[in-house]
Amino acid sequence: MNRQWIYTAAPEGKLTTDIFELRKLDVPEPGPGEVLVHNRYFNVMPGNRAYMHANLIHGPYSLHAGQPMVSTAVGEVVSSNDPGFAPGDVVQAMSAWQDYVAVPAQNLFKRDGAHSVEHYIGLLGQTGYTAYFGLLHAGRPRAGETLLVSAAAGGVGSAVVQLGKIAGCRVVGVAGGPEKCAWLEQEVGADATIDYKAGDLAEQLKQTCPEGVDLFFDNTGGPVLEAALDAMKNGGRIVLCGNTAQYDSDKPMSGPKGVPLTLILKDLTMKGFAYGTYWDQFGEADRNYSSWLEDGQIKPFYHVIEGLGQAPSALVGVLGGANRGMTMVRV
Amino acid sequence: MNRQWIYTAAPEGKLTTDIFELRKLDVPEPGPGEVLVHNRYFNVMPGNRAYMHANLIHGPYSLHAGQPMVSTAVGEVVSSNDPGFAPGDVVQAMSAWQDYVAVPAQNLFKRDGAHSVEHYIGLLGQTGYTAYFGLLHAGRPRAGETLLVSAAAGGVGSAVVQLGKIAGCRVVGVAGGPEKCAWLEQEVGADATIDYKAGDLAEQLKQTCPEGVDLFFDNTGGPVLEAALDAMKNGGRIVLCGNTAQYDSDKPMSGPKGVPLTLILKDLTMKGFAYGTYWDQFGEADRNYSSWLEDGQIKPFYHVIEGLGQAPSALVGVLGGANRGMTMVRV
Repeated sequence: MNRQWIYTAAPEGKLTTDIFELRKLDVPEPGPGEVLVHNRYFNVMPGNRAYMHANLIHGPYSLHAGQPMVSTAVGEVVSSNDPGFAPGDVVQAMSAWQDYVAVPAQNLFKRDGAHSVEHYIGLLGQTGYTAYFGLLHAGRPRAGETLLVSAAAGGVGSAVVQLGKIAGCRVVGVAGGPEKCAWLEQEVGADATIDYKAGDLAEQLKQTCPEGVDLFFDNTGGPVLEAALDAMKNGGRIVLCGNTAQYDSDKPMSGPKGVPLTLILKDLTMKGFAYGTYWDQFGEADRNYSSWLEDGQIKPFYHVIEGLGQAPSALVGVLGGANRGMTMVRV
Repeated sequence: MNRQWIYTAAPEGKLTTDIFELRKLDVPEPGPGEVLVHNRYFNVMPGNRAYMHANLIHGPYSLHAGQPMVSTAVGEVVSSNDPGFAPGDVVQAMSAWQDYVAVPAQNLFKRDGAHSVEHYIGLLGQTGYTAYFGLLHAGRPRAGETLLVSAAAGGVGSAVVQLGKIAGCRVVGVAGGPEKCAWLEQEVGADATIDYKAGDLAEQLKQTCPEGVDLFFDNTGGPVLEAALDAMKNGGRIVLCGNTAQYDSDKPMSGPKGVPLTLILKDLTMKGFAYGTYWDQFGEADRNYSSWLEDGQIKPFYHVIEGLGQAPSALVGVLGGANRGMTMVRV
């Protein structure tokens, strides 16, 4: 039997679990050139909600009513009609919230199995790659710089905080609530934090970054991005990685007031970024994460939710800021 | 006698000439280390209006009530208390709308006098440098790319259109009204134009840039920037040079809707830019402009307004889109 979560309708306002419907089908037969994969873990991240904005997001990530809910996943090959894959292989794919999936071989990414499986949906998967290439390739941090990270307690953010420390930056994390801030400072290694729910972002930015921000890794957009523009140093860089302030709403937001004038006056660069651009360099991220995991420079912060049935509520939880670290569902 | 235009109060809404007051003083005596300059030409550009937003713009370009109106100027040395300057030298400076000015020698930039004086306020001055470094250094155009230029009939824009053609780009200019568009295509060399006053920017962008925009040189911000984001190719670059849509107003605008999400989805880079960053490379611009002027690859489009008394109305005119090319006042 193959359980499958169907996306039935675009949410009106905030996501609720009732727009998903669990369907039970037979396990699919892989067609010519296809591989049958038994999913083990899915990624659950704010980006999943972004796919529901079919008016904004085009191409393969655009989600339409009636489709299985898409997500990256890691699993094991059950049977294969492609000579490159054999039963038992560990594979990653853009997949869906379901037990089994038949995937064209060229859409699969075979892993060497050197790590426990959850790493391939965590640090060595979409979330970890996003942090790695976004910070280190798009952002190019230098030792001694002040790095500001929004949604710092999230999956991407908590990895960026750690990567920023490895790069020698002073890292300031923005998160919602005192518990997350304490966790970031005590467990993840942030040098300072800003609780955006405590208000007066501008004043908090002045206090925590008195000399300004060199590099801002932004996962949220919205009021945090607007306030951060005023806190940038001249010549500063902003990596735009996510827009979580916008995803869980059906009202398009206007952009931050400082665009374009603050960017002109301060000679700022803003770079939108998606991890897929760097697909031919994933091996570099794998090697470095493996070495940092081994010597303890990076800690995996995985929030594992048990059971395919919990996927919709896991996503609602992520959007509401319920979780810390990288959230994944174990099938 | 030294005539001097004083900025008396921040405009409420659009600039009007009555916030300027003409004062008549004695010609100043240069102090120790100072040089007395007789101004010949001033630059009149939308940026002069931006200086009046003292709440947004800090540092030397911030203009406060009661100050002489600031502007770049070119003039001749009358007397000098610095060994580096002698009477008759042609000099550029951040100056003011007045006949004579006493300037510390280190704030002056001596010109070789190889060109007629107006070039030092035109192509070989602030406006020309802004076009040169903004397009060629910040934007890095490549042959065959589609370059979109907003406020293309303005001082910076009309130089950017020509530089884009020299770089081998297909150049599309945005301007207000059919006369400016015809001028851009017939005189300046744009391959196509968009009249933003004719409406439906999105549709016009689709028609003129069916494969999308590689590089956008933006002088305006506002609705043109918002529409252009949707017209960018994946991986496209945006140089933010000016925000004229905002300058002549006292109401802060919200930013374009596509920031940050469109930048993330399309892997776009937005770079704010000010020409002063490149001061140590001005010689490169001088050499290239001189050679292009000589062989006719660049045409100087100068709109010269006669008389210091006309400066306030010249600025009001520039802000209202009355002029084509680089506007300057001859003292």
